[in-house]
Amino acid sequence: MSGSTAPGPGEFTVRTLGRVVGGRDEWVEDGWGSVTAAIEVAPDLPDDVTLGLSDFSHLEVVFVFDRVTPEASQRAGARHPRGNEAWPEVGLFASRGPVRPNRLGVSRCRLLEAQPRRLVVQGLDALDGTPVLDVKPWFEPFAPRDAVRQPAWVGELTSRYY
Amino acid sequence: MSGSTAPGPGEFTVRTLGRVVGGRDEWVEDGWGSVTAAIEVAPDLPDDVTLGLSDFSHLEVVFVFDRVTPEASQRAGARHPRGNEAWPEVGLFASRGPVRPNRLGVSRCRLLEAQPRRLVVQGLDALDGTPVLDVKPWFEPFAPRDAVRQPAWVGELTSRYY
Repeated sequence: MSGSTAPGPGEFTVRTLGRVVGGRDEWVEDGWGSVTAAIEVAPDLPDDVTLGLSDFSHLEVVFVFDRVTPEASQRAGARHPRGNEAWPEVGLFASRGPVRPNRLGVSRCRLLEAQPRRLVVQGLDALDGTPVLDVKPWFEPFAPRDAVRQPAWVGELTSRYY
Repeated sequence: MSGSTAPGPGEFTVRTLGRVVGGRDEWVEDGWGSVTAAIEVAPDLPDDVTLGLSDFSHLEVVFVFDRVTPEASQRAGARHPRGNEAWPEVGLFASRGPVRPNRLGVSRCRLLEAQPRRLVVQGLDALDGTPVLDVKPWFEPFAPRDAVRQPAWVGELTSRYY
């Protein structure tokens, strides 16, 4: 992209391909399932970027947790999920929280309407204004294909999330 | 990170937090389910980064399609999935292929063994040496929560993928 210089070894420069518009403007830990918002496509992408998406019911969205500052995001040590000491401390890679070095979020959401430059979605847990780095169609066979095992705290944490 | 300069507006610098070691070294479109490999944790992350992961059966991995050159990745126009003209042309956001501006891949895989700095995985569709930008535990309730709809070509494309 113009204006940028080459990243260092092991680094990559990624750019905003869309932006969340609407939905929540402050972090709330539960009830995301009913939240509607839109993903507006970045102006440098062509109109056909959403061609064929109306055949899909769900999207996978990669976004930046931009409410976390780059400095705060460098904390890579173990943490209690949501700071809840009733739950065990887990390492960075056993957490899905926003405080993580690359600030990358990955979520599935329902696609309500695919317009050429605007995707209306439901259940996307990203705040108004969030930079979107990628949108992919959800392929059903790309979910885990065998039984999923997870610790008890995940069931508690997610029970009212959607 | 040292040596890098600030990214431009709407840009973000991300860094390699791990690397795929082993598995396939060339792109093959099918049969990923039986491929085993490891994700080796980057040296600048603490030993506790995988703490608690052994309670999870599956991971979600964000990686860079680094076999695609940055120049080639800028092609954002509609394409036939896998170049197969029997399938309809779809836009960038209706494709999961590697030729996409930020070169981001997102996949689920089985976690076979969680060592402190090494995650042994099965079914990760990323080549030997691939830079990993994030690893998250798979939360079962974070899959789509209602019926998934997808076009017929997805069923054909994925029938032997895993």
